[in-house]
Amino acid sequence: MTRIVTASVVIIGNEILSGRTQDGNLAYLARGLNELGVRLVEARVVADDDAAIAEAVNALRARRDYVFTTGGIGPTHDDITARAIAKAFGVPCRRNPDAVAILERFYADGEHPLNEARLSMADMPEGAELVDNPVSGAPGFRMENVFVFAGVPRIMQAMFEGMKHRLVGGAPVRSRSVAVDLPEGTIAETLARVEAAHPGVEIGSYPYYRSRGFGVKLVLRSVEEDRLATATEALIEALRVLGGKPVEETVETG
Amino acid sequence: MTRIVTASVVIIGNEILSGRTQDGNLAYLARGLNELGVRLVEARVVADDDAAIAEAVNALRARRDYVFTTGGIGPTHDDITARAIAKAFGVPCRRNPDAVAILERFYADGEHPLNEARLSMADMPEGAELVDNPVSGAPGFRMENVFVFAGVPRIMQAMFEGMKHRLVGGAPVRSRSVAVDLPEGTIAETLARVEAAHPGVEIGSYPYYRSRGFGVKLVLRSVEEDRLATATEALIEALRVLGGKPVEETVETG
Repeated sequence: MTRIVTASVVIIGNEILSGRTQDGNLAYLARGLNELGVRLVEARVVADDDAAIAEAVNALRARRDYVFTTGGIGPTHDDITARAIAKAFGVPCRRNPDAVAILERFYADGEHPLNEARLSMADMPEGAELVDNPVSGAPGFRMENVFVFAGVPRIMQAMFEGMKHRLVGGAPVRSRSVAVDLPEGTIAETLARVEAAHPGVEIGSYPYYRSRGFGVKLVLRSVEEDRLATATEALIEALRVLGGKPVEETVETG
Repeated sequence: MTRIVTASVVIIGNEILSGRTQDGNLAYLARGLNELGVRLVEARVVADDDAAIAEAVNALRARRDYVFTTGGIGPTHDDITARAIAKAFGVPCRRNPDAVAILERFYADGEHPLNEARLSMADMPEGAELVDNPVSGAPGFRMENVFVFAGVPRIMQAMFEGMKHRLVGGAPVRSRSVAVDLPEGTIAETLARVEAAHPGVEIGSYPYYRSRGFGVKLVLRSVEEDRLATATEALIEALRVLGGKPVEETVETG
């Protein structure tokens, strides 16, 4: 049995909690981690508040293999993530010379001055290891099993793609997806029976209401491809017996 | 000084944590709550797991005025929210006669039978108060300060709209939004200075990269409309001094 490698995400930002900004980073990280065999098991959205960030990070880093934070590492007064992470680890937040060197190179063209606000993006918890930012210069960082990324999706994605080879995953979860034109209440007993008959396979049931009618999307997930195939066939057959027209959708991970 | 009324949201579902489904309920609830003067201060996304749901709900209900959960109240085996909430409150999960009566009326046309799977949607923690579901019959419920909603956005929204008059809010947070064509690092010191000069007003800074260029969206938030107006004017003036072309965007709450 492969060990399950787990991760949590901490989304930092008042703009998410006010409903002004729709987060998309969670879904991106979830899919990216799954491909590496790292299972996202919890996420938290916290305000731009030192204590709230530190509390969430400390609660999660103790019980997950990896923690990823997004948001709050820019040059403005509301960018307090570095300070909060330093607090979480009980270390001082200091100007990191390697980060300063990166900023000096990035701003070398002189179009924008490397002023104190921009330099503050080099303030990091003592002991931080840099995470490359190919988009806008200012690096993210790592403290033990905690990775600190930007909140702007384009930058967050570039940071993740650039460091993900460092993560040690387990077996990736494979999934198959079947849509059926029957209501959930009609197929519920069948689903439970098929799941019980296929240990190691988890079946999720997601009703949908579309313009052309309602139905249910069934997602089968397992780390074992053979079991997944057997369970999918059994499910499709059982749904036909119930009078449905099950259709398998594109195979994907996640 | 008006008391600040706070809320948390617990989003329940493996499909969110796998990245398969993009959550939209958080932003909807955040905006709806804000209009009522209830501030969303934290959210958690947890797996379809009794213990994880109960832990999150217990951690949050003790320290927030309201907690809202979304997801996991349908008729299938992966719908375990009611059981988990009963566990969180230390009460039995029993078939609720009022909920059964609602289901009986909803399925009275005989198109779909009220089978055991559908009846299981009436299983609720002892003491639960029903939350109306005008879309698909099966009610949500309330236990003390915890409101349990469906995960399907259309149903969740109908449940929230139908019960929100029961919530007692504080002063709603008003916001104004200014876009400027200057990089964050250039305006950072100015932002901090304007915020410091206007107590009770919070300024958030959100850089954007669009096809027609980059810039920063600044969001000023306050419960006091007068202070908000004064701070917005001061900010616009200060951004002009820096050589920017600030543009105020549509006034909105949130």
